[in-house]
Amino acid sequence: MPRVADPKVRRAEVVAAAAALIASEGPEALSMRNIADQAGCTIGLLNHWFKSKDDLIEAVLDQAATAGVDRVKAVVENPDVKLEDVVREFLPLDEERSAELRVWLVFWALSIGRPTLRRGYSQRLRAMREEITREVSERGIVTKDVTQFIDTLMAMLDGISVNAIAEPDYWTIDRQTKTLRWMLKQMAPKALV
Amino acid sequence: MPRVADPKVRRAEVVAAAAALIASEGPEALSMRNIADQAGCTIGLLNHWFKSKDDLIEAVLDQAATAGVDRVKAVVENPDVKLEDVVREFLPLDEERSAELRVWLVFWALSIGRPTLRRGYSQRLRAMREEITREVSERGIVTKDVTQFIDTLMAMLDGISVNAIAEPDYWTIDRQTKTLRWMLKQMAPKALV
Repeated sequence: MPRVADPKVRRAEVVAAAAALIASEGPEALSMRNIADQAGCTIGLLNHWFKSKDDLIEAVLDQAATAGVDRVKAVVENPDVKLEDVVREFLPLDEERSAELRVWLVFWALSIGRPTLRRGYSQRLRAMREEITREVSERGIVTKDVTQFIDTLMAMLDGISVNAIAEPDYWTIDRQTKTLRWMLKQMAPKALV
Repeated sequence: MPRVADPKVRRAEVVAAAAALIASEGPEALSMRNIADQAGCTIGLLNHWFKSKDDLIEAVLDQAATAGVDRVKAVVENPDVKLEDVVREFLPLDEERSAELRVWLVFWALSIGRPTLRRGYSQRLRAMREEITREVSERGIVTKDVTQFIDTLMAMLDGISVNAIAEPDYWTIDRQTKTLRWMLKQMAPKALV
């Protein structure tokens, strides 16, 4: 029986295949040939869906970011949840989140040689900062220096994540969690209750 | 007149050429062909000096790390210097440090697909943590939770650096400096005096 191929579903599968390749093999795996092989499609089809390699890279980050945002939204729905539990969703504490963070890390590295990637990224980050700022303000977690707290928190989450990928034996799940908690305890104790 | 080519000097030049290529074009530029072109040597000579691509990548990180450590040592020599001034040497606050940090970022991304790179990296990080721990303890900057403070500080520095590379318009030098200062003010006020 021929495969029923909804183009939208198939496109998402191709993006997921590219993400899986990046998350397991890093930036060097990112060739149209490798991605086509991994996704089981032709390079012609890739070129049909993605105007350029930049376009494909953005689609991969978009999928990872959407998955992350959806996960955070599911956690935030619970009104009793602590801010700590919300933000720890951004740490690579399990295989799914670790793969997502590896995609972000590769994206950051690729943006060095592809500065146009930064435009969409900057918009996305601005939206994420606004979302977290709203969450922090509504909960009364911090009342002054809110922007400074958000900048520090976002940098901290990325810093822990990068270290967890680069030095996993040292940056265990326990160390990641304790470091986030220690930082919050001193900067925003209300995030822990 | 033929070029006088001290092999050690020439090797360091080749490594510097590879670093410059990575810092300006990212991980995708890292082919033996590109590096040979940039360094003005043959692929045969590259293969003579570096057993493998891993070997070359490690040499590039080694050069960046040594430059960073030398810079920090020069700052530390001044007994009146604040810890803040020591650790801000790890932020990409000028072109030299920014290029260095881009090399680190590419290294982290490459380590995803080259896990053997992590071994040497882990030793290097352990040595850096010990060095900073010694500096922090001798100065009486923090007296309890020293390891936790060092973990937080190292993650923070990497987090600010990654953000400064990925989103330079938002993470200006002023924002990087203020974020480090704000974090130190709350976690180790003695680092600022």
